[in-house]
Amino acid sequence: MSFNLATILRESANSTPEKPLLHLGEISLTYGQVDELSGRVASSLLALGLEPGDRVAVQLPNLPQFVFTYFAALKAGLVLVPLNPLLRLPEVEYHLRDSGAKVLVTFAPMGAEAAQAAAKVGDVRTYAVTLPGDDTRPDGTLAFDELYLGEDTRDIAPLSPDETAVLLYTSGTTGRPKGAELTHFQLFMAATTGGNLFGYQQDDVALAVLPLFHVFGLSSVLSTAVRFGGTIVLVPRFELEPVLTAMQDRRCTVFLGVPTMYVALLQADTSAYDLSALRVGISGGAAIPGEIIRAFEEKFPGVVVLEGYGLSETSAIATFNESAEHRRVLSIGRPMWGVEVRIVDGDDGELPRGEEHIGEIVIRGHNVMKGYWGKPEATAEAMRGGWFHTGDLGYRDADGYFFIVDRKKDMIIRGGFNVYPREIEEVLFAHPAVAEAAVIGKPDDRLGEEVVAVISLKPGAEATAEEVIAFTKEQLAAYKYPREVRIVAELPKGPTGKILKTELRD
Amino acid sequence: MSFNLATILRESANSTPEKPLLHLGEISLTYGQVDELSGRVASSLLALGLEPGDRVAVQLPNLPQFVFTYFAALKAGLVLVPLNPLLRLPEVEYHLRDSGAKVLVTFAPMGAEAAQAAAKVGDVRTYAVTLPGDDTRPDGTLAFDELYLGEDTRDIAPLSPDETAVLLYTSGTTGRPKGAELTHFQLFMAATTGGNLFGYQQDDVALAVLPLFHVFGLSSVLSTAVRFGGTIVLVPRFELEPVLTAMQDRRCTVFLGVPTMYVALLQADTSAYDLSALRVGISGGAAIPGEIIRAFEEKFPGVVVLEGYGLSETSAIATFNESAEHRRVLSIGRPMWGVEVRIVDGDDGELPRGEEHIGEIVIRGHNVMKGYWGKPEATAEAMRGGWFHTGDLGYRDADGYFFIVDRKKDMIIRGGFNVYPREIEEVLFAHPAVAEAAVIGKPDDRLGEEVVAVISLKPGAEATAEEVIAFTKEQLAAYKYPREVRIVAELPKGPTGKILKTELRD
Repeated sequence: MSFNLATILRESANSTPEKPLLHLGEISLTYGQVDELSGRVASSLLALGLEPGDRVAVQLPNLPQFVFTYFAALKAGLVLVPLNPLLRLPEVEYHLRDSGAKVLVTFAPMGAEAAQAAAKVGDVRTYAVTLPGDDTRPDGTLAFDELYLGEDTRDIAPLSPDETAVLLYTSGTTGRPKGAELTHFQLFMAATTGGNLFGYQQDDVALAVLPLFHVFGLSSVLSTAVRFGGTIVLVPRFELEPVLTAMQDRRCTVFLGVPTMYVALLQADTSAYDLSALRVGISGGAAIPGEIIRAFEEKFPGVVVLEGYGLSETSAIATFNESAEHRRVLSIGRPMWGVEVRIVDGDDGELPRGEEHIGEIVIRGHNVMKGYWGKPEATAEAMRGGWFHTGDLGYRDADGYFFIVDRKKDMIIRGGFNVYPREIEEVLFAHPAVAEAAVIGKPDDRLGEEVVAVISLKPGAEATAEEVIAFTKEQLAAYKYPREVRIVAELPKGPTGKILKTELRD
Repeated sequence: MSFNLATILRESANSTPEKPLLHLGEISLTYGQVDELSGRVASSLLALGLEPGDRVAVQLPNLPQFVFTYFAALKAGLVLVPLNPLLRLPEVEYHLRDSGAKVLVTFAPMGAEAAQAAAKVGDVRTYAVTLPGDDTRPDGTLAFDELYLGEDTRDIAPLSPDETAVLLYTSGTTGRPKGAELTHFQLFMAATTGGNLFGYQQDDVALAVLPLFHVFGLSSVLSTAVRFGGTIVLVPRFELEPVLTAMQDRRCTVFLGVPTMYVALLQADTSAYDLSALRVGISGGAAIPGEIIRAFEEKFPGVVVLEGYGLSETSAIATFNESAEHRRVLSIGRPMWGVEVRIVDGDDGELPRGEEHIGEIVIRGHNVMKGYWGKPEATAEAMRGGWFHTGDLGYRDADGYFFIVDRKKDMIIRGGFNVYPREIEEVLFAHPAVAEAAVIGKPDDRLGEEVVAVISLKPGAEATAEEVIAFTKEQLAAYKYPREVRIVAELPKGPTGKILKTELRD
């Protein structure tokens, strides 16, 4: 018995070799071309002497070369290590050392520090992807184009289904980034089961603005589209004009994004664009306020926004709201096919249903990682009793829908009471002037922690901190409402658009 | 990461607990009931002290208890060993010893020899399934009903996807039966990918007259139906009246059978039955003549007959004719999703396309067994170079369709069952009067092939054909023993002394 996740590309390429798999601006690449180019890169990597299981790091924005490298690594039986292009020298160095990567693929315009990190680590062959018309590469790097020189043998390494395909670095709940080992089988199931949840069809066209180096982009955007033989429109950065143009020109039917992207699309004037092909929006990465869903569906009639929940360790989706009829606003939905989710207390005892039974969300099934690369203790800790511990707090209602009340580490304890920032953020989003909101705990001598909100306002809207405090006070228990509201121009966000609470706390 | 094939039952039961999964005559069992009853049996098996990986043999015709035992074994992390109810005492003994089964489930009316075999092996707890109204059980057996006394804990053992789920005994290309280890992942993929080939929908109703202990029944009938949440109509034996009544009364949409069944339905007067619900016929087990397909589709308008090819070692389907538009008469079709098929020469070199390039058919992919249970050498031999060697000879045409030109030289297919001459020759050689023996297939209108033995007697010894037939009948299943024995002075042999079967056939 053997399996290789690259089969999803080969099978779709066999069925529809001439169909576009990737669009990027004016460039289009067919399934046949991507299959061939990734085969060439696979041969070149193996010709370097790499052996099955060796790691290949890729630090690229959403460019076709990311896709080639992904499938090349899979075909060759190598392990892909996707890295954020924004990582700085010591971070790249850490990831290269921890993963033991023998090859690094970076992006010439942003890769200077990565190249230095690779040189510092030593024995890391570094290839740089350049943009057309500018061959400048960081010192010590080779041209990515060299990797096209290998022959496309069409070989796909026959592997065991639980062989590691990808090391996806994540901070988990604590400590330095750890590489979650995602397997060929796991990512295949994620792509298949995820696509079924979205109602994915071969003629779907998905906008890929979520970074492909992140689990949401890698699994739910890229792998799912290839599994179903669909088309992907690459957009390297979330900027309104390129996103709206791509959606219109390529007639995108599926949008996958984080809540901040939905907020941005909601606030933008999109009247000049024809977005009528859009049928579904998939939201993940952070909780999307019910207000945003309602407003988005009102602004774009015929579109349904479905929210899911997952983590790097669960190869993206673990729970999902399957359809407009079956979704529950504010809920993360129900477990996906083949996945079990429970709420447990501090001793890992299962808690009953009901919103009064808040505990940690734990997950078991085909979507859970094999473990953290080279970290048996962290793996054992996260996988206690065979269940992956998410570090998220929530409950399950009587109908089996799950609700997140907050991250375990984000929970604020104010005067002995648990305060869940998400609940307060929901109230803030309901304020007509509020565009973005994040609630954090601030050390307080008397209460232990005090509740602080940081917000940004919608363009043209006006509000004072006092007014916003008064607004929340009306809707929240006295121990919960924020005593302090800070109004800023924009909240700090990570690569996927997720608000960075750690930075806010600083 | 974990997976268990029993997830297919749990998920369908969660979605449609009240829907019938099984019909047998007047009896109907819902998904919820089968989930619960198999959970009870699982608990009872574990309560006996069985441990993950232990084997449970089941020797039943198509009864609900087969289905309960299958899913019970999966849920408990045990390995199912399906056996043909027609096996005689020494055969059951061999299978029990070879698999090391700790439990045997047999059918009271036919289980006397099995019970004796279990007693002979020792340490095998034997349960007998009785029919309503007759509690008679073979000596030394327990009532299967006792297994219902366990509690349905709803536990499903979290396993690695390449854990063995089923040992399916097959003679492979040579020698005594070997247990092909089929994994949880493999059978899941077979059910999913196979169902997609048939266009399986949740409202499909499949007639299950193919034996569930055989790979075609276990994988393509049972597992596929459960995977897609469909309904199965059990018919324990292929007899026209019960088959036609069941197809009419339960409005069967899918018929799965071997060519001899299609022939029987074609020749029968079916005018008194309303078979209008039928939409597709799946044929496998042996080559179906194009004439039969055409005549069948003419007799039953709206029905399409699709032919596939596979073996126990490939968890049923390896190649398939996907649709009426894309099928090729006489071809076994093209490889299923995720499966690679090649034609190789005697040195395992791949042969080019074209009907002049006849070689052995070899297969690689998610559908190929893990290996033969406890037989590393036979596994290594069958899996040379990572490809499963089918022993079938064929070619691939210019469009990629595969054709079988000859089965493995010696193998006989009698009524859809593989009969391996060497096994029967071994029995013949055990007869005191037999000097030489060769078993060949003789063309037969009804069964495809009939088993014929040609023997010579030891000097001075005497025996009649009838006597020799009676001798083999005692030691071999009804589908195996030779119906005709010819006694000759000497068998034709080649220069090395090898018996020339080709000459015998002439």
